[in-house]
Amino acid sequence: MTHHRFAPTRFHNAIGSHEPVLRIASGDSVSTWCVDARGRDSHDVEITARGNPQTGPFYIEGAAPGDTIAVHLDRMRPNRPRGWSNSVIAPWIVDAGFVHSMPRGKLDEWDVDATAGTATLRVPSPGLQSLRPLPIDPMLGCFGVAPPGGQAISTATSSTHGGNMDYRGFREGVTVYFPVFVEGALFHLGDGHAVQGDGEIVGTGIEISFDVTFTVRLIKDWATNWPRAENATDIMTVGNARPLDQCVQHATTEMLIWLHEDFGLDSEDASRLLGQCIRYDLGNIFDPAYTMVARVAKSLLPTRMAR
Amino acid sequence: MTHHRFAPTRFHNAIGSHEPVLRIASGDSVSTWCVDARGRDSHDVEITARGNPQTGPFYIEGAAPGDTIAVHLDRMRPNRPRGWSNSVIAPWIVDAGFVHSMPRGKLDEWDVDATAGTATLRVPSPGLQSLRPLPIDPMLGCFGVAPPGGQAISTATSSTHGGNMDYRGFREGVTVYFPVFVEGALFHLGDGHAVQGDGEIVGTGIEISFDVTFTVRLIKDWATNWPRAENATDIMTVGNARPLDQCVQHATTEMLIWLHEDFGLDSEDASRLLGQCIRYDLGNIFDPAYTMVARVAKSLLPTRMAR
Amino acid sequence: MTHHRFAPTRFHNAIGSHEPVLRIASGDSVSTWCVDARGRDSHDVEITARGNPQTGPFYIEGAAPGDTIAVHLDRMRPNRPRGWSNSVIAPWIVDAGFVHSMPRGKLDEWDVDATAGTATLRVPSPGLQSLRPLPIDPMLGCFGVAPPGGQAISTATSSTHGGNMDYRGFREGVTVYFPVFVEGALFHLGDGHAVQGDGEIVGTGIEISFDVTFTVRLIKDWATNWPRAENATDIMTVGNARPLDQCVQHATTEMLIWLHEDFGLDSEDASRLLGQCIRYDLGNIFDPAYTMVARVAKSLLPTRMAR
Amino acid sequence: MTHHRFAPTRFHNAIGSHEPVLRIASGDSVSTWCVDARGRDSHDVEITARGNPQTGPFYIEGAAPGDTIAVHLDRMRPNRPRGWSNSVIAPWIVDAGFVHSMPRGKLDEWDVDATAGTATLRVPSPGLQSLRPLPIDPMLGCFGVAPPGGQAISTATSSTHGGNMDYRGFREGVTVYFPVFVEGALFHLGDGHAVQGDGEIVGTGIEISFDVTFTVRLIKDWATNWPRAENATDIMTVGNARPLDQCVQHATTEMLIWLHEDFGLDSEDASRLLGQCIRYDLGNIFDPAYTMVARVAKSLLPTRMAR
Repeated sequence: MTHHRFAPTRFHNAIGSHEPVLRIASGDSVSTWCVDARGRDSHDVEITARGNPQTGPFYIEGAAPGDTIAVHLDRMRPNRPRGWSNSVIAPWIVDAGFVHSMPRGKLDEWDVDATAGTATLRVPSPGLQSLRPLPIDPMLGCFGVAPPGGQAISTATSSTHGGNMDYRGFREGVTVYFPVFVEGALFHLGDGHAVQGDGEIVGTGIEISFDVTFTVRLIKDWATNWPRAENATDIMTVGNARPLDQCVQHATTEMLIWLHEDFGLDSEDASRLLGQCIRYDLGNIFDPAYTMVARVAKSLLPTRMAR
Repeated sequence: MTHHRFAPTRFHNAIGSHEPVLRIASGDSVSTWCVDARGRDSHDVEITARGNPQTGPFYIEGAAPGDTIAVHLDRMRPNRPRGWSNSVIAPWIVDAGFVHSMPRGKLDEWDVDATAGTATLRVPSPGLQSLRPLPIDPMLGCFGVAPPGGQAISTATSSTHGGNMDYRGFREGVTVYFPVFVEGALFHLGDGHAVQGDGEIVGTGIEISFDVTFTVRLIKDWATNWPRAENATDIMTVGNARPLDQCVQHATTEMLIWLHEDFGLDSEDASRLLGQCIRYDLGNIFDPAYTMVARVAKSLLPTRMAR
Repeated sequence: MTHHRFAPTRFHNAIGSHEPVLRIASGDSVSTWCVDARGRDSHDVEITARGNPQTGPFYIEGAAPGDTIAVHLDRMRPNRPRGWSNSVIAPWIVDAGFVHSMPRGKLDEWDVDATAGTATLRVPSPGLQSLRPLPIDPMLGCFGVAPPGGQAISTATSSTHGGNMDYRGFREGVTVYFPVFVEGALFHLGDGHAVQGDGEIVGTGIEISFDVTFTVRLIKDWATNWPRAENATDIMTVGNARPLDQCVQHATTEMLIWLHEDFGLDSEDASRLLGQCIRYDLGNIFDPAYTMVARVAKSLLPTRMAR
Repeated sequence: MTHHRFAPTRFHNAIGSHEPVLRIASGDSVSTWCVDARGRDSHDVEITARGNPQTGPFYIEGAAPGDTIAVHLDRMRPNRPRGWSNSVIAPWIVDAGFVHSMPRGKLDEWDVDATAGTATLRVPSPGLQSLRPLPIDPMLGCFGVAPPGGQAISTATSSTHGGNMDYRGFREGVTVYFPVFVEGALFHLGDGHAVQGDGEIVGTGIEISFDVTFTVRLIKDWATNWPRAENATDIMTVGNARPLDQCVQHATTEMLIWLHEDFGLDSEDASRLLGQCIRYDLGNIFDPAYTMVARVAKSLLPTRMAR
């Protein structure tokens, strides 16, 4: 149960089987930091190329294909006072006939007060003069493990390995499960958002550099197919694909598999429960792969198998 | 401000320009009832053909194309103790390769206690023996106004006129706005659910007959394009289409229009706000047209123009 | 085998259970005409409201739900010298980020010479000065039968009943099969195009009024699910839906059913054949429901059951 | 203008910035061979891991980001007498409710006679006893260049770099253009099909190892965005994505750009032409990214700028 401190010196814009920066054991924690989506650090200095640069990868000793790692997000905090966002909704998220009515976007800056827990537009436009500071809700946009088959997948997108899911439920206190595809799993993380709406419809949250502490647990011989997660109240499964319909298919199927394997519900009983109780959250509808999350309250579930 | 009581004797399985059953004035309330999706009334007797039979239409005096009606759902309550649901998730909501693992569904019956606010499977399968009664959350699945152009649209589906949206946010206390396409608007309603998960993924909620009281207000010269809604905390816009991506486009565009016309936000300021604060709810991913709802907290909005 | 001549006096902008204009027997032919998509007749005079106005409906004696009608398009000819089209591709058919680069469209006029078989832009823009006359290939954009369940479906869209499919394969010489949903089938037709590219990507073909002769044959007790067609070389099935993926699913499934029922191929043998030999044509990607057509060469098929 | 002969000894299952196997100059030709999709060579011996193993990559001297390479497929011939295919259409290509009616697929073997140009099922099932030999039409399923950003993309899928497009138009005599993303372009090729229907709906063509001769020409300072192609009669642009609608958007946009840059047509004139004359071909609707090809006849186009 070692607690590592790691200061990154190089970053990756694709998640793949890169040289590990640190080897850790199951149960270990790591405190590190991530640059923002444009490669800017806690001093707002661009130290690496833009595009969700990743800290890592971290090699988890003993992890092998067919296993799963559980990454607990212990602490996530913006580590500088200035964030930024895009100002206009992406054109594929409004009616095609409405695009001509939309202006070209620009970059907005926000003052982020991590102690007060607020974000404030630096230069409020006239229409938003009365807007009170937004409560922040820090989340990780892009994180995951090396994909299978010798692939290296751009941090612009996501798939079974995680990646750029941009789901606001990935906040402090959540545990995220990733299937292991390569020896050591090779966990990467980056792309902090001080806050983000559902869908990441302007293509950004309030983008900012982060201090992050996480703890990894290795679960041997637990083959999962898609990222899963849980917090105090819910279990969740994640589908990353296009269009949104396919995200829902992946997340729902993965939930059926989980409910069967760990909660003893066959497809029909799981359907009965989910039919009346499931919740779906829209992670993002901006990135090359979209993200939908299926969620069910733990209070509704039967006794769970230990992992 | 008359309060009408209306007992239906005939029902419609398409929403269209049918003969009105009652003419009401703006501000009037109506207490009536709806059969369940299979045409069964409060005695569980099938009195009309299945397929979300609609009570109505109600003619709103003075309503004309270019207006909007506001329907406040004052009270919605199951009026019998027995509901039903399907037992298996629809095959297009799981991975195509998983369909062979899914059983054929059947009809489940539920004991619904409207006073206690619970629903209990009548014959719990072994895996769900420990399932506690589900809290109910009554909602209307299918309601809306006559569509334009001489159309009559099946109650299986939905569009700009409303229809079978199957959104669990359409519960007691909400106000739903519909564009008026024909003289009198011709409001229809039916398809009560004691409770329903996001997406209506088994193709039903817990289907049951309802007593409903609603109040209609006519808003002249307010042209809306899609159903909108509000409750105590949020304003909402509704997109009905396929695939889900297109629902998101419709709901987001309609929200931009609303924020501009009634809250004075141009597309860029509205984008700034929505980008960090919007919520999307999945109504249904079962019907021929799916439903996504965009939602934003009233607490975040500027002063609103009176309608 | 009567040959009727019918001159329409009223038109419909929704396909539904309207009063028949003529009752015909199986085997009968009808010579009639259709206004163009904007309601303009052979004199280019607007005689009815725009939106693919339909001639008909024609009642086929003896047709009942569970039957199929075969409509042979004997002759289709533009009956005036002037057609029109839109000048710009619809915004949802290009990349969302490219929409700002597209101009707003306008109406172009074309000189259509039905004898020479050519269409020529009346006012060629500088870039198209060298464009030779386009060969015409007349087709019907919107035709079909009354849908089930008391529906009346806008001529903007299409479904199992046919409707606005905008498929350039629906030309002279083709036989189109429609499922019968109501007594008499109630066949409607309209929306002639002198020529149209795949996808109807500008939202129009070269729109023009038509003289049409068709022959209807009633096939009792042949329940089909979607429009089908055949010409000298191919059999075809039609899927109308959104997105295109779903059109492909409908057309492919209907082809599997046809190959099984009339050609004796089970799903696996049909798959073997289609896997290496199927062709898909894109009807339209413009209308509310898109259209994809699955096609297979008759020369590859086993002996066919007589209908 | 050297003609190289190259015998591969190792293969790649992801297209990326691998060590080049040969460096060639613009204008050079290469004669080589490719294993089939399961890694089997001309002796039907599995010599590498399955999954569309690629021969190459070939480094084109002088190629740099911002350039385009033109790959002419001079000669493509099955080099063994036995091919194979899957026997059942993939479940996402039929209606979800029809999947339960479909059997599980198996592997079929075909006798391929490259001289006679035919493919014959080795063990015809009863229903296909009368099926005559299918004419073969050899094509490359998966080929392309190293993608940008340090990515390595699985040969299961496709994107802007090409990859597993499975388009039957990529046959002998075609020239395919790829954007250059890395120094040397790094051209890979594999996955020969003796024949394949539109959509690759059973997930395979008739898969077989190939002898291939190709010639590469480097076109400096011609930045393209997606694969393009041309044959004697048509120019083509390729969109690889999901769903099919998005493929159409990519292919259509790329065609507009090509028509503008090389043929002098602005978006409106190009729209006028394409609206009445464009053709779309369905490459595949099986792989993680689908493929649609936009095509227009050279005979309709204005004078072309030399490249």
